[in-house]
Amino acid sequence: MSIYLDNAATTRPSPAATAQAIALLEDGFYNPSALYREGFAAHKRLEEARRAVLSHLAPAGGYGLVFTSCGSEADNLAIFSAGHGNIVVSGGEHAAVYSAAEELARRGREVRFAALRADGRVDEADLLSKVDGETALVSVIHVGNETGAVNDIAALARAVKAKNPRARFHSDGVQAFGKIPFALASPVDLYTVSAHKIGGVRGAAALAFRKGTPLHPIIFGGGQEGGLRSGTENTFAAVHFAAAAGEACGRFHENYAHVRALNACMRARLNGELFTVLSGDEASPYILSVATRLRGEVLMHMCDDAGLIVGTGSACSSKSRVSRVILACGVAPALAEGVLRLSFSPANTEDECARAAVILNRCAAELAERMR
Amino acid sequence: MSIYLDNAATTRPSPAATAQAIALLEDGFYNPSALYREGFAAHKRLEEARRAVLSHLAPAGGYGLVFTSCGSEADNLAIFSAGHGNIVVSGGEHAAVYSAAEELARRGREVRFAALRADGRVDEADLLSKVDGETALVSVIHVGNETGAVNDIAALARAVKAKNPRARFHSDGVQAFGKIPFALASPVDLYTVSAHKIGGVRGAAALAFRKGTPLHPIIFGGGQEGGLRSGTENTFAAVHFAAAAGEACGRFHENYAHVRALNACMRARLNGELFTVLSGDEASPYILSVATRLRGEVLMHMCDDAGLIVGTGSACSSKSRVSRVILACGVAPALAEGVLRLSFSPANTEDECARAAVILNRCAAELAERMR
Repeated sequence: MSIYLDNAATTRPSPAATAQAIALLEDGFYNPSALYREGFAAHKRLEEARRAVLSHLAPAGGYGLVFTSCGSEADNLAIFSAGHGNIVVSGGEHAAVYSAAEELARRGREVRFAALRADGRVDEADLLSKVDGETALVSVIHVGNETGAVNDIAALARAVKAKNPRARFHSDGVQAFGKIPFALASPVDLYTVSAHKIGGVRGAAALAFRKGTPLHPIIFGGGQEGGLRSGTENTFAAVHFAAAAGEACGRFHENYAHVRALNACMRARLNGELFTVLSGDEASPYILSVATRLRGEVLMHMCDDAGLIVGTGSACSSKSRVSRVILACGVAPALAEGVLRLSFSPANTEDECARAAVILNRCAAELAERMR
Repeated sequence: MSIYLDNAATTRPSPAATAQAIALLEDGFYNPSALYREGFAAHKRLEEARRAVLSHLAPAGGYGLVFTSCGSEADNLAIFSAGHGNIVVSGGEHAAVYSAAEELARRGREVRFAALRADGRVDEADLLSKVDGETALVSVIHVGNETGAVNDIAALARAVKAKNPRARFHSDGVQAFGKIPFALASPVDLYTVSAHKIGGVRGAAALAFRKGTPLHPIIFGGGQEGGLRSGTENTFAAVHFAAAAGEACGRFHENYAHVRALNACMRARLNGELFTVLSGDEASPYILSVATRLRGEVLMHMCDDAGLIVGTGSACSSKSRVSRVILACGVAPALAEGVLRLSFSPANTEDECARAAVILNRCAAELAERMR
């Protein structure tokens, strides 16, 4: 079996969470909007899942949570809910935020993109210079999905609101929730999380919102999710999400220490003549972005053949060979073509990382030799 | 275990389909957009699922299919893709079409609602009178989710296009696909189907589109689903959908005959002094709408206590006591408050239906007695 180091693309669903949620595909399959006892029981499971996710995400309270079908939908719900005015997003946003902002621009809205630093964090001064009295929404990714760069979103939200108290602050926390230390609190208005990056299944994600934050649905219909997201609720995926979040957050510190060790092991073992680490020292340990002077895709396939699965940049932007985010970090195009993303899960072992480093070093050396 | 006659709200997921799809939660969990072998294998499963659903839905070809997270999303994608001009929808639409059309009206678009006949079908003359040279989109539900009324959408689409060849024709086929005889073909441009009404799980639905029909995404991001629906693909739900569709369509004729018998059994056994059948004789046998002069919700709870699960109108509009669709059929408000929806699946037995009729008759008589 291959070593899997593309956990930022998707994680293996937790078998324990599946075992907890499977009843929702069996005897608990009823429609949670139905008014009979069995429907109400399904509704209760859904509400318990909502409270559970919120308890891990925003333990001090003050937030509501709307379940969506995926992180992209939650990001879109946040962006398209922006009131009148300009929108400021970082150049390091996930495609779901970035493309939704571009769509707003096509619809005639003014969208301003803030620059990144070399390590992938947003340039705070540039971001703030773009916020003015007309800014409706600012969106800055919490943990960059390609670089692992951690933005201090609480501080950024405070700084944004000092310039414009009416500006709303959203963050895509898909690569942060359950992985890096954080409790959602007051200056951040909207926060996106997704199940399938922390052992959940696809079909459940959520937008957490500070109570009172106006939201405008993008899917209309039966008025589920308090009117914010119509469509029969995916109770299986939501309950699975809550179980996976409970697992990830229940072992948070052990997981974090373990993944830090995996990341350090990888950094120490990669051949420095072949690999340049792009991720900063302060990046999330779950994501390690490395550049080579080789064709990333070819290297990825060689590793795959050798039993190691790694990503090239983000799976979500796999259509373009060179990553917009990596270029925004100032990486030269020649180097940007050779970027690999190694991303960890608490289920990876140090032995796997050691073997992965051997495979990476060997394949990169072989490819470099071939390209001479 | 209770007798379940609310299959139009959601069906019990097929255990055989779950068994087929479960590998996508285990060893086949990889991101289908990833470029390594395992990601490509997941992608292949997704494309096989797409072809399988299309093969059942539009066997003559000419259609593409975009997977969405639910039928409501697919309906919204169709409605919000309407080009410039007015929109004509029937008064019998599912909330997902109806509310999306209302949202377009709030955005300043002209939306015209066509009247229903007593049996729930759209009034064709009224519909056509509302179509003109400026009509961008017409949407008529294939099988009414509350009444089971079957609209002849192919004939309606032809008539609409005779008046305006540029008008696009959409139909919500969520209660039709796999249940009533139909093959999607040329005059219909857009068609919505959903997994969880035919033994699939929530998380998969689709909008089939006649090739060349322009669509405008409502969720932006990584560009999955040919750019029409971003977000990591829910391979488990899609593969499960294909398996469930294969089951439903593979036994189509037996299922149809069986469900017709169940429907007839119920019609024959319900006490005519207490129940008025609203569904027409030509309605889908899967849905039987009946009215009483009693409080429908109370009757539903009494049945639930007696071991029979039935719906009150549509689960998706359960918040309002009286159904918009039932009123649009011309049912008096006093009677509309006492509507129950009995909806069948091939898994129901004649014995269950006979016992269900006994429970319905007994509970209705008891409630009528109490209300004297």
